[in-house]
Amino acid sequence: MREVYIVGTGQVPVTKQGQGRGRHMAARAIRAALAEAGLEPREVSALYVGNMMSGMLAQQQQLGALYADVAGLRGVEAATVEAACGSGAAAARWGYMAVAGGFHDVVVVCGMERMTHAPKETTTAALATAADWELEGCVGESFLSLNAVLMSRYMERWGVGSRDFAHFAINAHRNALGNPHAFLRKPVDLEAYLASREVAAPVKLLDAPPICDGAAAVVLATRDVARAAERASRPAVRVRGSAIATDSLALKGRREILTLDGAALSTARALEQAGVTRDDVDLFELHDAYTVITALSLEAAGFAPPGRGVHFGKDGEIAIGGRLPISTMGGLKARGHPVGATGVYQLVESWQQLTGAAAPNQIPDAEIAMVQNIGGTGATVVTHILARAR
Amino acid sequence: MREVYIVGTGQVPVTKQGQGRGRHMAARAIRAALAEAGLEPREVSALYVGNMMSGMLAQQQQLGALYADVAGLRGVEAATVEAACGSGAAAARWGYMAVAGGFHDVVVVCGMERMTHAPKETTTAALATAADWELEGCVGESFLSLNAVLMSRYMERWGVGSRDFAHFAINAHRNALGNPHAFLRKPVDLEAYLASREVAAPVKLLDAPPICDGAAAVVLATRDVARAAERASRPAVRVRGSAIATDSLALKGRREILTLDGAALSTARALEQAGVTRDDVDLFELHDAYTVITALSLEAAGFAPPGRGVHFGKDGEIAIGGRLPISTMGGLKARGHPVGATGVYQLVESWQQLTGAAAPNQIPDAEIAMVQNIGGTGATVVTHILARAR
Repeated sequence: MREVYIVGTGQVPVTKQGQGRGRHMAARAIRAALAEAGLEPREVSALYVGNMMSGMLAQQQQLGALYADVAGLRGVEAATVEAACGSGAAAARWGYMAVAGGFHDVVVVCGMERMTHAPKETTTAALATAADWELEGCVGESFLSLNAVLMSRYMERWGVGSRDFAHFAINAHRNALGNPHAFLRKPVDLEAYLASREVAAPVKLLDAPPICDGAAAVVLATRDVARAAERASRPAVRVRGSAIATDSLALKGRREILTLDGAALSTARALEQAGVTRDDVDLFELHDAYTVITALSLEAAGFAPPGRGVHFGKDGEIAIGGRLPISTMGGLKARGHPVGATGVYQLVESWQQLTGAAAPNQIPDAEIAMVQNIGGTGATVVTHILARAR
Repeated sequence: MREVYIVGTGQVPVTKQGQGRGRHMAARAIRAALAEAGLEPREVSALYVGNMMSGMLAQQQQLGALYADVAGLRGVEAATVEAACGSGAAAARWGYMAVAGGFHDVVVVCGMERMTHAPKETTTAALATAADWELEGCVGESFLSLNAVLMSRYMERWGVGSRDFAHFAINAHRNALGNPHAFLRKPVDLEAYLASREVAAPVKLLDAPPICDGAAAVVLATRDVARAAERASRPAVRVRGSAIATDSLALKGRREILTLDGAALSTARALEQAGVTRDDVDLFELHDAYTVITALSLEAAGFAPPGRGVHFGKDGEIAIGGRLPISTMGGLKARGHPVGATGVYQLVESWQQLTGAAAPNQIPDAEIAMVQNIGGTGATVVTHILARAR
């Protein structure tokens, strides 16, 4: 298998109805990524698009071919990948395989989602398609209500209160202040968190991600392309691990409701492939869609034992400069969670950290990033391990 | 790159509201494919699902993880691939890469589509998302009306009448009679074709595919797995070529409205990779969604010059036993076109031809099959070249 590198990234600011049409948001991100890589459209031979809801909310499918055309890549191999909120990273997984397996030398991966143009109830219904419709959606469960179940079970099982989750939201919002592309750029403190209204008890508004629009892209390429970029003083980041693992869609189908088996499996596969250990990880861009998912992700990834994930970071471990920074550019919570684009934003931000382009949120000497994107409440988990190239 | 083989196939009969739930249709096809391959679920490490409309018509996304779970494959890598009506073969393309690139030894590809449970206008609207919404869908164009534009332009440009397209429908219906899994198992003759009502002039009902439900699956595996299967007297078919190419979604965006550039490019790439020529092709499972697409596909693939595709087969070339049999098990026209499943049905049927399991429609000594699945009216074109293993 060939080595795979990220050689360029692009993103549009995460916003609310500020971006205009999806195809143009996507094309902007793709063109920015190619410009950063110093590559021309004719050097690209494949485009994989991550998207969850365009068919339901914008009457537009076949985004792969469409975005290829609009971005000046007509003719290339293209398709769309869907794994609910994990769509962006799942598209990157295909892109990784395409380069590593020798099928393409330069591939673009683009995540795009527009969620704010549709009536709120339409968007809520579209999001619920990530859950098991027959067992959950059709009896009225929404994505929010399922996360409320998880949070209340967690609180009950481990004897913690909602304030125990506050530091995840506070950290994410603090970091978003340093990211010009973030959606929610306002500081949050414990008082604000506690005063935040419950949107589905015990989930407070500040436990949940915002509905928003966004598009991001990365260019994946071979070692030769990366070396050429480096000779032109352009940085490259190596993708050392890439894995997808799955679990039950329905919460009731899981082996244990508070254990993300898919995340544990995905993490183990990616770390093994990369040949690194948890101790080597300098930052963890996790899927902080809800604060309880942050706690469960830290546990599943092996950074905290069961029941301790919620306490991880209370002493500053998750902050920039801490032992394991998370949500370093604002995370899903504050950068925003345009679902099918989120996994690609995470890769873009990890690239920024590993190439020294994350100021004022720069993690000093970051060498290894673990990046995890989750579909549903844990059904599809995509993990990438990125390493600074030298 | 490693050699890739199809080592088992499964399909449910194409029907109308006869199959029950999508997940169970998919699981049936997957289990049948594994049984035919003589493999256990634990030997599978990835599942790629082709589907276009489940989110829009059944409130269910994230089919990769869902079907993996229902089919007994929980934990494996899984995701959904969407390229409109080309989704099934696009999923197979990912599966091919996963095996050829050394990422997985045994992969299942499943295509599933349910279209008949929703109100007709809802299904029609969902199908229109394959077209360019901004340029076509939002001004009232449907998939049918766009094909009517193509057919009338073709007739005008080349001075042919609708009866010139009849033999494609007659051939497909004749072949469906020999396929127990086909949806429309009734003979059609020229008289019936000519008497068929125009659903969107000049497109007659018998130029168009039926709305239907279906699921099909193939197991892709390494040479070692294929050899072991052969030792157990199970056949294997080698995937010698695999390619996706793209073109404009909107008809008006094409270089030339009656030329399928994406199909020409996709064909050329697949043939080159396979190291075979058009003369080597013993059957061509093409995307006969509409009779005009059959004519255009024959031209784009290089089997007929521009304007002559419509006449190809009038002397029996496309029949079983002819020079280039097409739609050998009924094609999209008569086996049926459950859109996201179609590309996988085509692979299953080509497997049947190459392993001698296609009686009474068996093509004698078939060695090479070209299989082509198209998204939209030509925007995403997936071509596979299959070869009988010996």
